[in-house]
This record gives sequence, structure tokens and C-alpha cells, in this order.
Amino acid sequence: MATEQPGPVCVPASGVFRRELIKQLRAQDTFGRWSGKNDEELLAPYVLSVERRRELPLMADPDVLTVWRLEMFYNAVSLCIESATGIMVTPVVKLHAEGFGRLVLLAGRLAAVSKTLREVHRFGFSSLHALDEAGEKIIAEAIQMIERFPLVAEL
Amino acid sequence: MATEQPGPVCVPASGVFRRELIKQLRAQDTFGRWSGKNDEELLAPYVLSVERRRELPLMADPDVLTVWRLEMFYNAVSLCIESATGIMVTPVVKLHAEGFGRLVLLAGRLAAVSKTLREVHRFGFSSLHALDEAGEKIIAEAIQMIERFPLVAEL
Repeated sequence: MATEQPGPVCVPASGVFRRELIKQLRAQDTFGRWSGKNDEELLAPYVLSVERRRELPLMADPDVLTVWRLEMFYNAVSLCIESATGIMVTPVVKLHAEGFGRLVLLAGRLAAVSKTLREVHRFGFSSLHALDEAGEKIIAEAIQMIERFPLVAEL
Repeated sequence: MATEQPGPVCVPASGVFRRELIKQLRAQDTFGRWSGKNDEELLAPYVLSVERRRELPLMADPDVLTVWRLEMFYNAVSLCIESATGIMVTPVVKLHAEGFGRLVLLAGRLAAVSKTLREVHRFGFSSLHALDEAGEKIIAEAIQMIERFPLVAEL
């Protein structure tokens, strides 16, 4: 538990999620291939224009890199929830065929986040700002769930 | 909700789990390849002697059929929890490399069951009786969890 915060947990400040996502991505760069990229360049593959989205076919399984980006996104979300609440959060992403799947962010026995994934082939956001907003929204909702059912989250 | 049971939910009688598992397996037999097999023959691959277990190497990914058997096992467990409590249960099985993974049986926002999977290559039981016992134990624990946190399970 976060001992320094006895009252209700604060939702992380704006920018915290993006920093965590960048940290997650850079941590995977074991060969330094992206060391010349700045943060915006690193996040660029998360941005999909409407035209680009439409071009991506929804057949067969999603691209490995797209799935990896989705996993990094939810890893960063999990870590932000964890630092805000002091409760360990485990992401469980299960993809079925054709880009469908299920995502659960587990805090103890509580599914702080539970989502059906669809069209994973087209996982992306209209802008970096939309990426931040999406991450921050999920984090805020998860923190609310954990505050509502602390006993289950601490199991 | 099971309207006919206003009091505490009863753990299913012995035999209920095995019947559900057989039903699950037979439902997958779309070409009638197993119609000549009796129930014991159908369940036989779930039984692994100590010697057979030791022989199975723990390298690379588990056999597809073993993973399928594991999924059928937890599908049957989920359906038994569902009929006892009236709450829909979704199994989420995520396997990582080398036979490690995570299993969550979700009832609403409650992880009625949450397990780390290990040595999935060797998923099996010493006897049919041990198979029944394992299924029934998980079902009983999950029902207990749902009774403890009904609000979360009904979310």
C-alpha cells in the first residue's frame, strides 16, 4: 500500500501515462536501435489516421508488432494504476483468432479493467493526444474500481 | 440469477463436474470420431501416470491437444460455477512460452479463480477420481468467492 497517501488515491497527473509508456518501450530496446529516436518518433506507430485504419485488413491474426504495442500500452496502464494505488496490477491479454480477444487488468481478485478487444489489427489512436487520453481514462476508471472494492483488490 | 435458490448456493453434487466435462468434449466432436468411445475412454487422456508425466519434456510450447484439454477442463469448471450461482463465468487462459501462463475465471469483475499455470506440458491427473476432485475443488472455491463478494461478481 502507498503509505504516504492515507486518503483517497489521486489520479496521476497528465503526462504520467505517456512517460510510463515511453519508459516501457525504451526498456525493450535492448540493442539500442531506437536510441536515435525522440519520444514522438518512438510513439508514432501508435497514431493511425482514419485512412490508414481503413486500409488495414481485418483478416487473419493481427500483426505481431501491433499486438506488442497493445501489450506495452496495457503494461504502462497497469504500472500507472500500481503507482497510484500501491496495489500490484497484472495485465492478462488473451487474443483469439481474427483480432478478437479479452483484456483483464487484475488487482488482487478484482478485474480493475475488463474489456473485450475487437479489431486489434487496427489498434491505434487518431493522435498522440488521443493516446494519452485513452490511457488516462482507463487508469482513472481502474483506480475508481479499486477504491470501490479495496478488499477484493488486496486479496 | 438462480431464482430458485434464495439462500446460500449449494456446491454441485459429486459427478456434476465430470458430466459437464464429458458434455464439453462431446460437443467438440463435430465429425463423430469419438462416438464409439465410452466416457472413460474419452477422458483417458486426462490421466497421466507419474512415469508418463516425467517422460514429457518441459521444453518449448505445450502440445496443442494438451492446451485444448486444459481449456475444456476450465470451460467445464466455469459452466458448473455458472449453474450453481446463476452468474456468467468467462474463462481467460493466457499461455506464455514454455508452458507458463495465467488462468482467470471471471464472474463480473471478480476473479472467482486466479491461477498461475506451470508445466502445462504435463497437465493431467493421477486418476479419473483425481480429475473429478481437482475440478470440484476449484468449483467450490469459486462459489465461495462469489458468495463473499456478490456485488463484484454481479457487476
